[in-house]
Amino acid sequence: MALIVQKFGGTSVGTLDRIRNVAARVKHTRDQGNQVVCVVSAMSGVTDGLIQMAKGLSENPSERELDVLLATGEQQSIALVAMALQDLGVDAVSITGRQAGIHTTGSHTRGRILEMDPALMSQFLAEGKTLVVAGFQGVTPNGMIHTLGRGGSDLTAIAVAASLKADVCQILTDVDGVYTCDPRVVKNARKLPEISYDEMLEMASSGSKVMQSRSVEFAKKFGVIFEVRSSLNHNPGTLVLEEHSHMENVVIRGVSIERAQARLTITGIPDAPGMSGRILGALAEAEINLDMILSNIAHDGFARHSFTMPSSDLGKAQAALKPVLAALAPHSKIETEAGIAKLSAVGIGMRSHSGVAATMFQALGAVGINIGMISTSEIKIAVTVDEPRIEDAARAVHDAFGLDKAPA
Amino acid sequence: MALIVQKFGGTSVGTLDRIRNVAARVKHTRDQGNQVVCVVSAMSGVTDGLIQMAKGLSENPSERELDVLLATGEQQSIALVAMALQDLGVDAVSITGRQAGIHTTGSHTRGRILEMDPALMSQFLAEGKTLVVAGFQGVTPNGMIHTLGRGGSDLTAIAVAASLKADVCQILTDVDGVYTCDPRVVKNARKLPEISYDEMLEMASSGSKVMQSRSVEFAKKFGVIFEVRSSLNHNPGTLVLEEHSHMENVVIRGVSIERAQARLTITGIPDAPGMSGRILGALAEAEINLDMILSNIAHDGFARHSFTMPSSDLGKAQAALKPVLAALAPHSKIETEAGIAKLSAVGIGMRSHSGVAATMFQALGAVGINIGMISTSEIKIAVTVDEPRIEDAARAVHDAFGLDKAPA
Repeated sequence: MALIVQKFGGTSVGTLDRIRNVAARVKHTRDQGNQVVCVVSAMSGVTDGLIQMAKGLSENPSERELDVLLATGEQQSIALVAMALQDLGVDAVSITGRQAGIHTTGSHTRGRILEMDPALMSQFLAEGKTLVVAGFQGVTPNGMIHTLGRGGSDLTAIAVAASLKADVCQILTDVDGVYTCDPRVVKNARKLPEISYDEMLEMASSGSKVMQSRSVEFAKKFGVIFEVRSSLNHNPGTLVLEEHSHMENVVIRGVSIERAQARLTITGIPDAPGMSGRILGALAEAEINLDMILSNIAHDGFARHSFTMPSSDLGKAQAALKPVLAALAPHSKIETEAGIAKLSAVGIGMRSHSGVAATMFQALGAVGINIGMISTSEIKIAVTVDEPRIEDAARAVHDAFGLDKAPA
Repeated sequence: MALIVQKFGGTSVGTLDRIRNVAARVKHTRDQGNQVVCVVSAMSGVTDGLIQMAKGLSENPSERELDVLLATGEQQSIALVAMALQDLGVDAVSITGRQAGIHTTGSHTRGRILEMDPALMSQFLAEGKTLVVAGFQGVTPNGMIHTLGRGGSDLTAIAVAASLKADVCQILTDVDGVYTCDPRVVKNARKLPEISYDEMLEMASSGSKVMQSRSVEFAKKFGVIFEVRSSLNHNPGTLVLEEHSHMENVVIRGVSIERAQARLTITGIPDAPGMSGRILGALAEAEINLDMILSNIAHDGFARHSFTMPSSDLGKAQAALKPVLAALAPHSKIETEAGIAKLSAVGIGMRSHSGVAATMFQALGAVGINIGMISTSEIKIAVTVDEPRIEDAARAVHDAFGLDKAPA
C-alpha cells in the first residue's frame, strides 16, 4: 500500500461539481489500494474576493489580518472536499495547516516552513482515514495564523509528503507535465517523463511557470519525488527527482522563454571599490528583481553595468538609481532598452558536453536572430533577443537540440 | 479604565459599511478611556451560504466538517473588523476561538464551554491592544475546531467577559433592551433598566427571544453583569444581573408571550408506577420539547396527562405515543388542541407578594378570556389562552400590574 499526496489547485475545487470530481479522483486512487492525503487550495475566486473586501476597508491592510482572512479560503475547501469524499463513502477528515503541524517563520503573508510535526496526520492515517489538508497555511511559533505566499499550496504538498515520507507527491494541475518548451510556442514540444530538481529550478526561474522555485528547492532538500500531472486525465506526467546517471546523456532537457524583459545599462561609473554594491543596493531596496547582471570595464577606464529585469520595473529602477548615481558617479549615463525577451536552454548534460553554446548561437544566427546579453550557469545558457523574435528563437534552439525526439 | 466586552451580531457586520460602523463604535468606547474586547459573529448571510454549499455536496454533511466550514465565517469577520479598526488608527488584533482559549466539550455543532484560558488575550490587552474575538467557536481537548450552536456568539461574549473579569459585557443588538412586553403587542411596554438573571431566564424560556437561556445561565454562574442594548444608538439598555434587595419590590417584571402552541392530553392511563416515565421517555426520544406538564387522577380512577408543545411537534408527538400507549394503556385516548398560546408573567417579587395569580386571572376574566392550562414556578405564572386572544391577554395583564409605569 503506497502513501500518495495529491495536490489540487483552486481551479480544481472552483465549483461544487469540481469538488465532486476531486473527491472521485481521490476515491479512485484510494480504491487502487493506496492511502491518500490530498492538499487543496481555496476555491478559485475566493481569495481574490477576500482581498477585495480587505482593500475595501483599508488601503494597506495589516498582513497579520490578511493571513487570518485568507486562511479561511483553504479551510472552507478542506471541509467541502472532506464532505464530498464522505458522500462517496470515503472516511475522510479535514486538517488545517496548524493541525498538519506546519510550523512557520518569516513575515506575515510570506511564511516559510520551519519544521513539520505530522503527529496528528499520522494518527488519522493509522486509523485508515483519508486526509484533506489545507494548502497555503501554517502557524507561527506563538500560535498565529500564517500564510505561505504565492505557490504556497504546492509547498504544503511537498512538505506534507516529506513529513509523512510519502511514496509520491502528485501536483495535479491544468498542464499535463513539464514540456521541452511551451507547446503553445513550439508545436512539437514533448512532455518530459522526468527532469532533475536542478533543471526544474532553472526552468522555473527562466519563465516556466509550472511551479515556484521554493517548492522545488524544498523537494530537493528533503528528497521528495514529485510528479506534475493533469487533474483532467489519468496520463502520467513528469517526475521531478534527484538526477541519476543516465540523465546526463541528454545535453539539453528543455528550453524556456520569458517575455517582457528590459535591459538597463549604466556607463561612466568610476572604477572604485564599493560602487557596484551601492548601485545594486539601491535597486534591491526598491524591490527590483534583477535577472542577468553583467559588468565590465570599458575603453575609457570607467565601469559599465548591465541588468535585465521585467519591463514593468524599468521606471522604478531608473527612479531608484538617480539619487545614488548623482552622488557617486556624476558622469554616468543610463541607457535602457525594453522589448526584449530571454531564451534559456537548460540541461545537466551541459556539464559533460562541450559545444552547447556554439550549437545554440549558430541555430539563432541561421534564422537571423541577434543575441543581446548572454549569461550562463553550470546547467543553463540564457540569451536575450528582440521580443518579436522570441518564438522563432525558441523553435530554432528546440530543433537544433532535437528536443522533439525522445532520447535513445 | 474599564474593560468592556462588546458583542456585535451578524447584521451589525453584514456589509463593509456596517463593519466600519462597528469599528467607529469600538473606537468611540476606547476614546472614552476604556479597553475594549469586541466579539463578532459571521457577516449575515455567510453562514447560510456555507450551509447551502455543504448541503449541495451531502444530504447529511458531517458535523465535524460543518464546524470546520462554519468557523470560517467568524474568522473572516474578525480579520475585517480588525482591519477597519486599524484604518481608524486603533491598534487592533483578531483572535480566533482557539486563541481566545475557549475550550469546549460536547458533540460537533453543539459545543459547550468547558474552560477558558485567556492568557493570549491578557497578553495583548497588556500591550494596549483592542481585541476582536471570533464568536461561536472554540477548540476541543484534542485540537479540533468546534462551534457552539445557536446563540454561540452571545455565549462567547459572556465567557470572554468572565475569563477577563471585564467590568461589563454589552450585547449590542437590533432591540433597545428587554421590555416589560413585546412593544409590537403592547404599545406602552417599557424598557427595563435592569432585570435579574432568573427573570431573564424565565422570560427567555417564555418566548422573549432576546437571548438564549444558556448564555444567561453562564452569566449567572460566573456573575457576569451584561447589558442588552442597541447597536444603532447610544441609549442605555437593560442590565442583567444578580438580584438585589429592592428588586423584590416589583411584583411582576414583565410579561412574555409564546404563540403557535398546542396541547396534547392522554386520558385512560392505568394508575401504576412507571407509566409516566415511559410516556415522557417516548416523547423525549422523539426530541419533543415539552413545556407545561400536568398530571392528575380522574373520577374514573385512571390518570390523565396534559402537555403543551410547539404546534409543529404535535404530529411527531402523536406518532411517538401510539406504540407505547398501545402496549401500556389499551384504553387510553389522545386528545389534541392546536391554536393556543402561552402568556407568562415573570417577577422575583412574586415570592414575597400574595394575590398575583388572582390579579392576573381577574384581568383576563374581565376581558372575557378563558384560561386553559396553568403552570407556575417560584417566579412565574403561565397560562394558555386561545391564540387569537393572546395580544388582548398580554395587554390586560400588562395593565393590571401597571407595567407601563416605572416603579417608585
